[in-house]
Amino acid sequence: MTTPTPASPTAAILLIGNELLSGKVEDENARFLTRELRALGVALRRIEVVPDVTDEIAASVRALSPRFDFVFTSGGVGPTHDDVTLRAVADAFAMDLVRQPELEALLRAGYGDRLHDRDLVMADIPTGARLEYGPGRPGGEARTPWPVVVVRNVWVLPGVPSIFRRKFEAVRELFRAGPIHGRALFSRAGEGYIAGALDEAVAAFPEVEIGSYPHPEARDYRVKITIDGRDGARVDAALAWLAARLGEAFVKTD
Amino acid sequence: MTTPTPASPTAAILLIGNELLSGKVEDENARFLTRELRALGVALRRIEVVPDVTDEIAASVRALSPRFDFVFTSGGVGPTHDDVTLRAVADAFAMDLVRQPELEALLRAGYGDRLHDRDLVMADIPTGARLEYGPGRPGGEARTPWPVVVVRNVWVLPGVPSIFRRKFEAVRELFRAGPIHGRALFSRAGEGYIAGALDEAVAAFPEVEIGSYPHPEARDYRVKITIDGRDGARVDAALAWLAARLGEAFVKTD
Repeated sequence: MTTPTPASPTAAILLIGNELLSGKVEDENARFLTRELRALGVALRRIEVVPDVTDEIAASVRALSPRFDFVFTSGGVGPTHDDVTLRAVADAFAMDLVRQPELEALLRAGYGDRLHDRDLVMADIPTGARLEYGPGRPGGEARTPWPVVVVRNVWVLPGVPSIFRRKFEAVRELFRAGPIHGRALFSRAGEGYIAGALDEAVAAFPEVEIGSYPHPEARDYRVKITIDGRDGARVDAALAWLAARLGEAFVKTD
Repeated sequence: MTTPTPASPTAAILLIGNELLSGKVEDENARFLTRELRALGVALRRIEVVPDVTDEIAASVRALSPRFDFVFTSGGVGPTHDDVTLRAVADAFAMDLVRQPELEALLRAGYGDRLHDRDLVMADIPTGARLEYGPGRPGGEARTPWPVVVVRNVWVLPGVPSIFRRKFEAVRELFRAGPIHGRALFSRAGEGYIAGALDEAVAAFPEVEIGSYPHPEARDYRVKITIDGRDGARVDAALAWLAARLGEAFVKTD
């Protein structure tokens, strides 16, 4: 079963783990996935970081799943007391947890002698979950040996960054959509001076997204203006329009 | 007016900005503030990253403010079309925006000749907001010239990292609470093997928080176990108990 990708797909990331909130571990997974989603043409619309608390995770899953095309979770999928993500996803959709024979067989084969009974809880997934192996990486291995557990539109990924990446890369081509075009221009005048011109650009080019970012430490400009959109020609047109409108304040494009 | 700090304060961070979700800018502010809050003894319980959309920001503020002692926002406080945080905070609490004379005077003095009318929208803050200058840094300058806008328990900070830091450092001593003690020990056995011992520790030491983190790339251990709590003696006791319970699997403490 593959996932039909809408033309302008949206996504949310749900990071799970006390270690992220205590500052013991710096997030790598949202940083990685944010870049990947951008490159795939998936518009990331929200990130949440929550503790290892079943009800909180379930509430986030329940709120995010209907709002976005894809929800990616990270963390909480091991066999210890603080691994409650699959229970929380099940709760979010009023499903039970059941031992999945295919996952159990993979765990037994993968762990071999080192398998402990408790490891098998990692094969307990929500009824209604499916296993997604993905098409693999282009030009890479045939397919991943470790499938991703998917419940509705929720993709359950692990917290360990190296495994998170490997699993996402196995399924990433399932998410590829039309590209998002991004350009930038730079102003030597400050935000107060250019705010009116930006308002006009927002009105004249409603199909692009315009952002304004002051850079007090930059040498040759004061504000970076970004223009993003699905239609590259309109992005370029908005860029040219704004460059002309800024006049003396215009420094360069990027 | 100072903020009474509860004994075990909690906090949430709300990052605002399309640039974070598109991957154009990597977050520095939540990373910085996570470490600061930990050092201050404030338990960070949630982070949300949302786009520059008034209703979304307002919904997050409305949801986070009653749940946590402090909410810190970052971003969206400049004078351009995509700066909607103060409007959103006002909406969250059903307040109006009004021009604040003290802020207006500060802007006029700070910008001097470079001030444009539009810059003055940065002095438009929610009715019911207050300006917090803080006690300054210990041993540092008397007090910051740029106050933080505070609405109820919501501390509105800018997105530019250097200014975010400067403003937070000016007020940080207002948040200092009792320390959170953190220790760690390491197991050469995997999570499945130690899961039972961790369950026992969780039951025996309910006042500490125990986390288990596999490190597949580590050389001399497989799992890092963290123990956090407000009572340092109980943290140490849980550490000693677990080290003994793990027996042969115990590697070292940290």
